[in-house]
Amino acid sequence: MSRRLSTAQEYAALLDRYDTWMFDCDGVLWHGDRIIDGVAEVLAMLRHRKKKVLFVTNNATKSRKSYKAKFDHLGVEAHVGEIFGSAYAAAVYLSTVIKLPKTKKVYVIGMGGLEEELHEEGISTLGGTDPADCTVEPFSLANFTHDPDVAAVVCGLDTKMTYTKISKAFQYLTRNPDCQFIATNTDSTFPSADGLLPGAGAVSAPLRYALGRDPIITGKPSKTMLDCIDAKVHYDPERTIMVGDRLNTDIQFGKGGGLATLLVLTGITSEADISGPDPGAATIIPDFITNSLADLRAIVE
Amino acid sequence: MSRRLSTAQEYAALLDRYDTWMFDCDGVLWHGDRIIDGVAEVLAMLRHRKKKVLFVTNNATKSRKSYKAKFDHLGVEAHVGEIFGSAYAAAVYLSTVIKLPKTKKVYVIGMGGLEEELHEEGISTLGGTDPADCTVEPFSLANFTHDPDVAAVVCGLDTKMTYTKISKAFQYLTRNPDCQFIATNTDSTFPSADGLLPGAGAVSAPLRYALGRDPIITGKPSKTMLDCIDAKVHYDPERTIMVGDRLNTDIQFGKGGGLATLLVLTGITSEADISGPDPGAATIIPDFITNSLADLRAIVE
Repeated sequence: MSRRLSTAQEYAALLDRYDTWMFDCDGVLWHGDRIIDGVAEVLAMLRHRKKKVLFVTNNATKSRKSYKAKFDHLGVEAHVGEIFGSAYAAAVYLSTVIKLPKTKKVYVIGMGGLEEELHEEGISTLGGTDPADCTVEPFSLANFTHDPDVAAVVCGLDTKMTYTKISKAFQYLTRNPDCQFIATNTDSTFPSADGLLPGAGAVSAPLRYALGRDPIITGKPSKTMLDCIDAKVHYDPERTIMVGDRLNTDIQFGKGGGLATLLVLTGITSEADISGPDPGAATIIPDFITNSLADLRAIVE
Repeated sequence: MSRRLSTAQEYAALLDRYDTWMFDCDGVLWHGDRIIDGVAEVLAMLRHRKKKVLFVTNNATKSRKSYKAKFDHLGVEAHVGEIFGSAYAAAVYLSTVIKLPKTKKVYVIGMGGLEEELHEEGISTLGGTDPADCTVEPFSLANFTHDPDVAAVVCGLDTKMTYTKISKAFQYLTRNPDCQFIATNTDSTFPSADGLLPGAGAVSAPLRYALGRDPIITGKPSKTMLDCIDAKVHYDPERTIMVGDRLNTDIQFGKGGGLATLLVLTGITSEADISGPDPGAATIIPDFITNSLADLRAIVE
């Protein structure tokens, strides 16, 4: 059963126990472009107390550099080396696990941030933000030239998803059985500033359905994301806590990696989800629950 | 076990036994805009022998009227009353089963044919071919006006599917729990003139995934399609045969309705699918199999 935190003593005990704090971003630190009240103070307090702070996000629309710019814009300290996004994890997976030869290419259903991370790993891309594919003009196979160098399709959230992109990706994956099918994450929705919108899992759903095949996932809760962090950061899992708003990504990710987990209720998971008539129905149980990350201010007050 | 047909006597026996012949279209009569060799003669021969001929298609991009125009263009006799499409079945389902009040509207992810069938049943639509929604420009909930009269979302194949349409449909279905979620069909792919492309099932997949909810299906193999035919045509199921290229739509549809079934190999299902090392692996077994509908010419020759 989860422990519900509310007193300054409880929050102080958490700070004593964990040295490395991993944070989901959307729904934990901010909603869209609005930072959640009190979160900036808590992050500053953690840094002041020499805690290691990492940001682990499934948002694949931004590269780590654009994420850093977002933190700057919100006035919150963050460094590129502390940011782990699912787009970065996809790029690292392709370059270090698959060891994609430099002559090969990736067809992208996704946005600029995903392309940027792939390019930083030296991977050439097709599709993505290419205006020729971001079109609702009719797609015809008669006008399609199959590029035999495409060795992977990578899918992330793409607000310019089109039938053309899905059809091209479908060709690459069906004509070449060795073509890798990778999705940055499978979040069904994401919290925009004004409410929930369909997430990256919805963007890869047409391909999964047409192919009858599941992609390799690089974001939370996949182990690929933790492998990516392990390769760059030293931390002790026993003294690390993952803070998130989503049971099936953030909390599952933490539990899978042997980390402690703290669920906050500022995002997807609501009070009703965990305290309904049958709270035991949830199969993923966080170690701790608090309303908001901002609650940790209680230590200072 | 299926009976493999090959002799003039076998085809002649089929003709004696069945008075009503229901045909799938794509992959059975034609590939894209190319009629399959010999099919026109077989259809003419059936009419000459006073057989009742019906066309039962999951293609929801065309209305029955545009289907009739396609038959005309291909030089094949057909009448609007003989054509049953999944778009028409969706419209009839909304008007006669749901009994949608005239003040209510339907949000469409789909093409002109689907809109046309809905309008013919007196149903107002939003989305669909509206250029404002057929756009890859960013979608923002801040600029979205929720129309409380939208009582259903209908999804068909839409080669102009966009994140904007999926996001709007998602709002209608989540903000109003009574909003009906309908898909014309769940075909994973469809055979275009130049090869397979993602089908209507791939177009509704993002919504199904984001909602965690399955739609009501109006096309084959759903009973809704047969109810639609029952209401308009008199036929004896015992003397009716369904001819199709797809086990999980056409053949399943025929079996579900107590009709005989004939699988042709000119479309999705290949020789290898049914005669592989474990042909019993297919759980949907047609009564009869022949290479092509055109094989029935053997009777005449």
